[in-house]
Amino acid sequence: MTAPKRIGKQTVAFANPPVIIGRATVVGPKEGKGPLKDYYDLIAEDPYFNADTWEKAEYKFFEKAVQLAVEKANLTMDDLNYFLAGDLTNQIISATFTARGVPVPYLGLYGACSTMYEGLALGAMLVDGGFADYVLAGVSSHYSTAERQFRFPTEQGVQRNLSSQWTVTGSAALVLAAQGQGPKVTHATVGKIVDLGVTDNTDMGAAMAPAAFDTIKQHLEDTGREPDYYDLIVTGDLARIGHRLVQALAEKQGLDLSKNYTDCGLLVYDPSQDVHAGGSGCACSGVVTAGFLLQEMEAGRYQRILGLGTGALHSPISSQQGESVPGIAHAVAIEL
Amino acid sequence: MTAPKRIGKQTVAFANPPVIIGRATVVGPKEGKGPLKDYYDLIAEDPYFNADTWEKAEYKFFEKAVQLAVEKANLTMDDLNYFLAGDLTNQIISATFTARGVPVPYLGLYGACSTMYEGLALGAMLVDGGFADYVLAGVSSHYSTAERQFRFPTEQGVQRNLSSQWTVTGSAALVLAAQGQGPKVTHATVGKIVDLGVTDNTDMGAAMAPAAFDTIKQHLEDTGREPDYYDLIVTGDLARIGHRLVQALAEKQGLDLSKNYTDCGLLVYDPSQDVHAGGSGCACSGVVTAGFLLQEMEAGRYQRILGLGTGALHSPISSQQGESVPGIAHAVAIEL
Repeated sequence: MTAPKRIGKQTVAFANPPVIIGRATVVGPKEGKGPLKDYYDLIAEDPYFNADTWEKAEYKFFEKAVQLAVEKANLTMDDLNYFLAGDLTNQIISATFTARGVPVPYLGLYGACSTMYEGLALGAMLVDGGFADYVLAGVSSHYSTAERQFRFPTEQGVQRNLSSQWTVTGSAALVLAAQGQGPKVTHATVGKIVDLGVTDNTDMGAAMAPAAFDTIKQHLEDTGREPDYYDLIVTGDLARIGHRLVQALAEKQGLDLSKNYTDCGLLVYDPSQDVHAGGSGCACSGVVTAGFLLQEMEAGRYQRILGLGTGALHSPISSQQGESVPGIAHAVAIEL
Repeated sequence: MTAPKRIGKQTVAFANPPVIIGRATVVGPKEGKGPLKDYYDLIAEDPYFNADTWEKAEYKFFEKAVQLAVEKANLTMDDLNYFLAGDLTNQIISATFTARGVPVPYLGLYGACSTMYEGLALGAMLVDGGFADYVLAGVSSHYSTAERQFRFPTEQGVQRNLSSQWTVTGSAALVLAAQGQGPKVTHATVGKIVDLGVTDNTDMGAAMAPAAFDTIKQHLEDTGREPDYYDLIVTGDLARIGHRLVQALAEKQGLDLSKNYTDCGLLVYDPSQDVHAGGSGCACSGVVTAGFLLQEMEAGRYQRILGLGTGALHSPISSQQGESVPGIAHAVAIEL
């Protein structure tokens, strides 16, 4: 067994890069009309997905994504060593209720919308460290559970701020393996909290952008890579405002992110879909990564991607108490 | 580098067992009058801890515990490679706000009251896997934040069910290291979800007991150890009802847990403190482990302990929607 290489301050270069051998995405009807519609495994006709509450619907999406990912990896649930999962609902009930159907050791994660990449980074460590042959990592989010929990119930018809983002309804699941065919997780840079004091909880892109930039910069420093080493650098859900802020921060510090930097929150919807600043939610980076990015890697269009999950780690009660919104971003390099 | 040994279905035997080189506990006044009062590092005189809301108070406890644990390990925050943390508040804001003062890679966890042991198990894997020299793992809980979030605001004066438990106000933090002096984490058995359909959210002990027993049994099977290998087997917060249920389940399956099995929720308060079934919360297993158990190990009274964090993974909204309460338990063997 070879030891992982810890490089720089925050980065791990995996000795035996874990392979993504299975991936699945299940989305709602709005996402299914978006520009990436051909990349999803299943598009639900109705955001209720045959459940009688939004919360139950959310975990139906999650259950389906998990089943498909494990099937597509040619495994059964019993082959898995760990299930790492999280979502945005209070006490991450979507992840937990999904875990009732995954009869293996379960580790609940909370990184807000960064959770897909928190799971990928930790999952890759468990595989590379010799603790697992197969790790399933998954996330979900749902527009209607997120709106009523973090903002206003949709029934109330409150006008949405133009800086606000649209939570992606859906779920993504990935299977990491010690061996196999597929794109590999070569590096992980777990992020630190960056909190510049943003208190506007309808402008999450601005709250998360400094953390995203901090992790991108740290990853490049730690690995000695230039931005153009990657075909794409993709943040999770900064959307229009946050994406622009990251570019501005990069420009200020002499890093050229003008050519190959995009954001899942910009890719997931078409501007005509009236989502204001763009997409967000755990499933935003989840379905864009597990759907679009990995499929295009498998097809050979991209060789090297730096993906980042970005999270705004506040709660309604912390906002009511005047607290700012701490941001975080975890980066994972995926290479062929 | 030696590979970790995966034994049986769910257990890891660490090749280089991580050492607990620092530990700290900060508790509220009620806990400070309990039977373990001499084991805590700091007892706050007031559960508000000089903050103006319960939520802000909770993270003051957490910040203090983290500072003390790092100091007691003779480290500075910058020496840490990862901070693994969680708590019971929605979106784990206590952990996140504490992480603002810990300038290192942060991974948020949610395992309800099992989180201290989720952090210990994962932290030990990160150290043993070669990903970290030092991992800080911590949790907090607060009676008043938990009551108003999960049940009723305390101001309302709602009568508490006799099966209900009292959430421990406090925080615990542990520093795991690749080398050093102290008790070692030799094994980890990460638990699966066990959900037997309990829907009474005032009886968490009953909801968690089957998961606790499942993990104890699996750990013993995987390691080939008998219950009496351990000086103590200690669950996290099953309290009076759950503790009895685990004993009953063990008896039924021919495992003798009558001599050395106890629960942190029974140890943390005196029955005269009117806590009904006993203690609970992330800080329950946290402060009993980081205070009492590890101090008694260091003093030589115990050589081998099997500790389990136990979690009830529900939310108020899932209970309102008629869902049952999934239970989980993660076991960690700590040996001299």
